[in-house]
Amino acid sequence: MSKQQETLRIGIAGLGTVGGEVARLIETEDAHLHMRAGKKLVVTAVAARDRTKKRAAALKNVAWVDKPVDLANRNDVDVVVELIGGHEGAARDLAEATLKKRKPLVTANKALLAHYGQALAGLSEAYDAPLYCEAAVAGGIPVIKTLREALAGNTMLEVYGILNGTCNYILSTMRQSGRTFADVLGEAQKLGYAEADPTFDIDGMDAGHKLVILSALAYGAPVNLPGLKADGIRAISANDILFADELGYRIKLLGIARMTPQGLMQRVAPYMVPQNSALAHVDGVMNAIYMQGSAVGPLTLIGRGAGAGPTASAVLSDIIDCARGRQASALAVSSQHVKAVNMLPDEMSESAFYVRLMVMDKPGVLAELAAILRDARISIQSLLQKGRAEAGPVAVVFITHDTNEKAMADALLGLAKMQTVLEPPCLIRILPD
Amino acid sequence: MSKQQETLRIGIAGLGTVGGEVARLIETEDAHLHMRAGKKLVVTAVAARDRTKKRAAALKNVAWVDKPVDLANRNDVDVVVELIGGHEGAARDLAEATLKKRKPLVTANKALLAHYGQALAGLSEAYDAPLYCEAAVAGGIPVIKTLREALAGNTMLEVYGILNGTCNYILSTMRQSGRTFADVLGEAQKLGYAEADPTFDIDGMDAGHKLVILSALAYGAPVNLPGLKADGIRAISANDILFADELGYRIKLLGIARMTPQGLMQRVAPYMVPQNSALAHVDGVMNAIYMQGSAVGPLTLIGRGAGAGPTASAVLSDIIDCARGRQASALAVSSQHVKAVNMLPDEMSESAFYVRLMVMDKPGVLAELAAILRDARISIQSLLQKGRAEAGPVAVVFITHDTNEKAMADALLGLAKMQTVLEPPCLIRILPD
Repeated sequence: MSKQQETLRIGIAGLGTVGGEVARLIETEDAHLHMRAGKKLVVTAVAARDRTKKRAAALKNVAWVDKPVDLANRNDVDVVVELIGGHEGAARDLAEATLKKRKPLVTANKALLAHYGQALAGLSEAYDAPLYCEAAVAGGIPVIKTLREALAGNTMLEVYGILNGTCNYILSTMRQSGRTFADVLGEAQKLGYAEADPTFDIDGMDAGHKLVILSALAYGAPVNLPGLKADGIRAISANDILFADELGYRIKLLGIARMTPQGLMQRVAPYMVPQNSALAHVDGVMNAIYMQGSAVGPLTLIGRGAGAGPTASAVLSDIIDCARGRQASALAVSSQHVKAVNMLPDEMSESAFYVRLMVMDKPGVLAELAAILRDARISIQSLLQKGRAEAGPVAVVFITHDTNEKAMADALLGLAKMQTVLEPPCLIRILPD
Repeated sequence: MSKQQETLRIGIAGLGTVGGEVARLIETEDAHLHMRAGKKLVVTAVAARDRTKKRAAALKNVAWVDKPVDLANRNDVDVVVELIGGHEGAARDLAEATLKKRKPLVTANKALLAHYGQALAGLSEAYDAPLYCEAAVAGGIPVIKTLREALAGNTMLEVYGILNGTCNYILSTMRQSGRTFADVLGEAQKLGYAEADPTFDIDGMDAGHKLVILSALAYGAPVNLPGLKADGIRAISANDILFADELGYRIKLLGIARMTPQGLMQRVAPYMVPQNSALAHVDGVMNAIYMQGSAVGPLTLIGRGAGAGPTASAVLSDIIDCARGRQASALAVSSQHVKAVNMLPDEMSESAFYVRLMVMDKPGVLAELAAILRDARISIQSLLQKGRAEAGPVAVVFITHDTNEKAMADALLGLAKMQTVLEPPCLIRILPD
């Protein structure tokens, strides 16, 4: 901390959308931030690739360093804000160097935490340097603080949410417009809601990184990225969106971490969300997190999961906590208390399932389908067949009662082998009411 | 704080539903709470009217004091938890005595804060004793921490919410069952969701107490209970609920604090909430708060606003913050920065309005109504007349474009004087999309 009690001197690494906005707000909202932080906030040093780029922040009297890691060593920097991104290289080097210099670290880097959260939390404790990471998950939604502090008296039972704005935008737009996945993805790329290479978002890895951080916070478990199962939204068709509506659901990509008596169920996948739940109505790029605690019961947070303003809001709250001396234990409990939890073996994970098959409309199809499900001991809750086609495929959709992944996988193998089934079945899990 | 670094000794005043649950959780969840708080939590002393009452907490080795205020003076009490309620007498005495003894105070007492929040915040600073009050507003929903810490980097633009579970239960049940206000209120009283004397809840004062606390936190303004305007839900009929559905709304009792260029608009009243908003789907005894910040944009929190578990969850989070040394500035900014804000004169407050009139179904009624609105310079967005009656009243409902309270009040006076208008008009403000 600064010797000058009344000033907190900030070094920012990365002056992209978020870093630029943080720097701008520290300049333009200085009186407000001084009042809320109890100290004057000043950016004293920055590291960014391009010094000449036009930025909204004036950055007067600010030192530019060539290597981000140098921010950790500067005597005029009390706290380092890491907004570089990526889980290796400059970001990791800077994070480690900062903590080892016994300086507080504020980071928005979900990949870094998902890969090295445990090690960084250990460094934070060893060097008595707090590690703040509100902006790493769900942008402006204070879910880290909520799990770490507000729900600290609870044993958490379940955490799930809409953690990826790109996927939620695509799914919402597919529903509102009736258009296909590929079509809407293309538009999202043009609008800047999806990356040129959208793989990381639409295949569920971005949501997965966030989920394993939330899971560690909720259950006092080590951050467990290798233990994650993630499916994305590529297989969702316009048909599935229509069927979901008809059946009383909305399709959302969810990250789920639920504690069961047999272990922790952790998964990213598209889910059928009941229309009477708040999450069903969270559309566009918004994010939302549902938590269930032993004392508090259900708690839902809804807000902007990305973007300059919301992410800067989270970074500023960390900086202010730091100025106020509100210590953060990076992952809610200290390393000595972090305990590996049993992961629920995937085949034991239970839910109801939505399955869509594209079939030739011939006599006997339903009988064969029913026999396969019977043999897998899966019972059907409802079944829809849409229209009749003289030639070409028709959609058959059914919803099962609760069953486990093993039984469902067995049944899917059988269904895929049916001669009348024309494409791989589409499977979507159903979120309980 | 305790000399024994590893223990936080807690005195609890009030062992009703919430106090009993806090004491029980501290006993039964001791290992979990020790881990999260970094200290062992122990209840060392309690004050409650009836010592012989059977309680879920064992309360072994706990000292019983006769007068709550004695908890403040005990050497074996590091932090006082005030769960007595009421804004005078024992609760106020205890709160003041605790802070003056330089001990942290945790309180769930919204009435105390609504009346004396400013004075208590002053004591908290003068004696360097933190004041925590998460449980005072919206039970298990961490809205205090969110406004005080998570959104500290934002200038707040608007805060509103469903802050009273009793009213929300009554309105939700009226909608689901089609029954009348009086009927549902009676049932709520039998179920324990409404008090024998329900005035405080259904006339909006409970929500008002919570709103003025949120308003102070959001805008850095003094707690201003006298400046509050509050209407309740007595005038809402089963008809209004039906019309709301038809017009695309749900009726909710909201507390609203919105900063306008002309001053702070602060009001508790029933509102027409658009069905596409998350708050429209918050039913039963659940609470919800919507916040709009300059950087974060919109943020919604939904959860249980009352009850033993959720309120105990909030109290425990305060106790854990206290154990962790996470200081709380009771009302988000220190006294020196608290600034009175201009209140928006009520007549200048603008919104669209829903108005229901019960009229004799005679020719010329609509012409007279339209003339009155024209003279008040109010333009109508839509108008519904329900059915035709041979004799007896029919409902005429209209929705205005945005207008101000003064114009609307003038028009209402005129409408109430119409010979064909049979009851006082029912007026409900419309929440913008």
